[in-house]
Amino acid sequence: MSSLSVEAGRAPESGIIEVVNAGRDHPDLIPLWAGESDQPTPAFICEATKTSLDTGETFYTYQRGLPELREAIAAHYRRTYGVPFEAAQVCVTGSGMQAIQLAIQAVASSGDEIVIPTPAWPNMAAAAELRGVKTVAVPMDIAESGWQLDMAKLEDAITDKTRAIFLNSPCNPTGWVASLDDLKAVLEMARRRKLWIIADEIYGLFHFGGDGVAPSFLQFCDPDDPVLFVNTMSKNWVMTGWRLGWIAGPARLGQVFENLVQYSTSGVPAFTQRGAIAALTEGEDFLSEQVELARKGRALLLDGFAGNNRVQYAAPDGAFYFFFAVEGVTDTRQFALDLLKETGVGLAPGTAFGTGGEGFLRLCFARRHDHLEEAVGRINQFLQRG
Amino acid sequence: MSSLSVEAGRAPESGIIEVVNAGRDHPDLIPLWAGESDQPTPAFICEATKTSLDTGETFYTYQRGLPELREAIAAHYRRTYGVPFEAAQVCVTGSGMQAIQLAIQAVASSGDEIVIPTPAWPNMAAAAELRGVKTVAVPMDIAESGWQLDMAKLEDAITDKTRAIFLNSPCNPTGWVASLDDLKAVLEMARRRKLWIIADEIYGLFHFGGDGVAPSFLQFCDPDDPVLFVNTMSKNWVMTGWRLGWIAGPARLGQVFENLVQYSTSGVPAFTQRGAIAALTEGEDFLSEQVELARKGRALLLDGFAGNNRVQYAAPDGAFYFFFAVEGVTDTRQFALDLLKETGVGLAPGTAFGTGGEGFLRLCFARRHDHLEEAVGRINQFLQRG
Repeated sequence: MSSLSVEAGRAPESGIIEVVNAGRDHPDLIPLWAGESDQPTPAFICEATKTSLDTGETFYTYQRGLPELREAIAAHYRRTYGVPFEAAQVCVTGSGMQAIQLAIQAVASSGDEIVIPTPAWPNMAAAAELRGVKTVAVPMDIAESGWQLDMAKLEDAITDKTRAIFLNSPCNPTGWVASLDDLKAVLEMARRRKLWIIADEIYGLFHFGGDGVAPSFLQFCDPDDPVLFVNTMSKNWVMTGWRLGWIAGPARLGQVFENLVQYSTSGVPAFTQRGAIAALTEGEDFLSEQVELARKGRALLLDGFAGNNRVQYAAPDGAFYFFFAVEGVTDTRQFALDLLKETGVGLAPGTAFGTGGEGFLRLCFARRHDHLEEAVGRINQFLQRG
Repeated sequence: MSSLSVEAGRAPESGIIEVVNAGRDHPDLIPLWAGESDQPTPAFICEATKTSLDTGETFYTYQRGLPELREAIAAHYRRTYGVPFEAAQVCVTGSGMQAIQLAIQAVASSGDEIVIPTPAWPNMAAAAELRGVKTVAVPMDIAESGWQLDMAKLEDAITDKTRAIFLNSPCNPTGWVASLDDLKAVLEMARRRKLWIIADEIYGLFHFGGDGVAPSFLQFCDPDDPVLFVNTMSKNWVMTGWRLGWIAGPARLGQVFENLVQYSTSGVPAFTQRGAIAALTEGEDFLSEQVELARKGRALLLDGFAGNNRVQYAAPDGAFYFFFAVEGVTDTRQFALDLLKETGVGLAPGTAFGTGGEGFLRLCFARRHDHLEEAVGRINQFLQRG
């Protein structure tokens, strides 16, 4: 019989989706498993797309994305970080996930390695492994003060096969936020070892551990530095279902990005890009509200679990996840399935997040506050019983 | 300096897009270079998407696609070919191109080979090469009676590294249509040599060389046969800009397809899928009109070039391209650029279509008839001068 490729044959089912599929029809569900708001995309974004459809923007379009959208993304970076950034550095993609896939294709081949601090969002490693690229986990440490990345451990993981460091800050799932010094150390390492950095800063505006936005490579790297930014419209503007993101980096890679898009999805619908343009140019207030909602959701969780000694965590400095261990629970996949069945609260099991994540559970707090309160109550009650 | 992966570094710019980019702003342009109608997507399809947006379908959705869409695709196959087909065999993708990319990932790894009759649409080979998969061209022969695939040549190209045969019928760009016997021979070869067939039958309803739809593997293969169908909404329902397609095959591969989607684009917007459902369930009359338009466009071209001895071709039996050589012209890339500059007629140069295509030009005839007539006139005049 014809057989599958090795990589396709061993690609894992998403450990998050497995629980989602088990719970879609629970009658009393509070789904906190995905990194997704419970609000639909606001009308001003949808209207831009509807208008585009009405005017017949249904043809093939620019492989790199509409010039207006690329400029809006560049302007977003300029506005947010106060640094120069040009549309020529940007290529629109069909999701942040696709931006990661294309970044991996751009820098690594079968047999190469990518280093990745863990716990980490599982799809990065899975996409690399599908290409035959090995991911080398660098487990982070959890201390009283929060999660920490040991730069010596990171460098020790680099071999002559390493082509890139994947750095996600603010981190999904841990909420860790790299300091400016951390980022500078990683960039110095990448320059010296001739590696790429795949920088996933999609939660950069969800920052609770200090003033303003989270530190970013954008604040100090040169336009020609080997940093590929992968990003998405999903989180800031509650556009998870839109499958719209971008990859950005040195402008000289423009044609390379175009080719990678051409030979994977051949572009993104112009009419969905019109929605993204509206989000980026008219969505500042909406975005501030989203960050404030998440900030309050985080406070609510920390309060709600304050009296529960079985719930152990480092308070997240960024992103919008509460990543916690439960005293006495080692099989978090089974725990997530049991909790779901008994209480209707849907969490993502830490087993989905690679080395060092196994003992944890992830809860998304970019959600309705009444649901968060209800979920905390149900979890606390469930743990009292258990 | 950090370097690109070998595959990304050598990925070619699309030879079609190169000409498109040279001509976007021509004041008197008749663009016939892309495989695309000049009609926008009909309103009944757009309205379904707009309604979906209005009802807030903007969240993450099923990785395999909406159940209703998968069923509509299966029903389309059952209706068109009169054979059983189940939704469980279908996985929605973000374009036919992505279906091809995922099919390659599913069956081949770096160092493996895929055999492909040429001339061929170039993106298939480029996507394979990006994965480090070598494509082995099997040049087809052009005779008085049309293009022909020599089964002995095809089998000779198979080595112990071959994992799949890519078969595109009706063929873009040649218009060749495999006979039922051709297809049976290829399936027998695939079974015997334990290979996959990646079957690109996206132009199956555009068939001019006989009665009804073009022969299809669907008419005789078993549900468990090693055939992966890659397809798109683009051509039948003029939805090129929507980036919506599907991959279909043995139902046992459902979880594999889901994983490949998860780790590439993580799904397709639910609201664009609603448009596709409308197209598939309410678009029969529209589709018949499109086929009829193409049939008349084809006749118009054959008439228009009948008196021009410098234009040499085999009349296309399927798809919607006129693929022709011009006596005395060997550099078709330069010819396409010159013709564009002088006359505003945009063609795709045969150099984009691999071995055996170099001496040809491709003209899409799924276009407005007044434009086709005007284009034929300009080309004939240009050739008289040259």
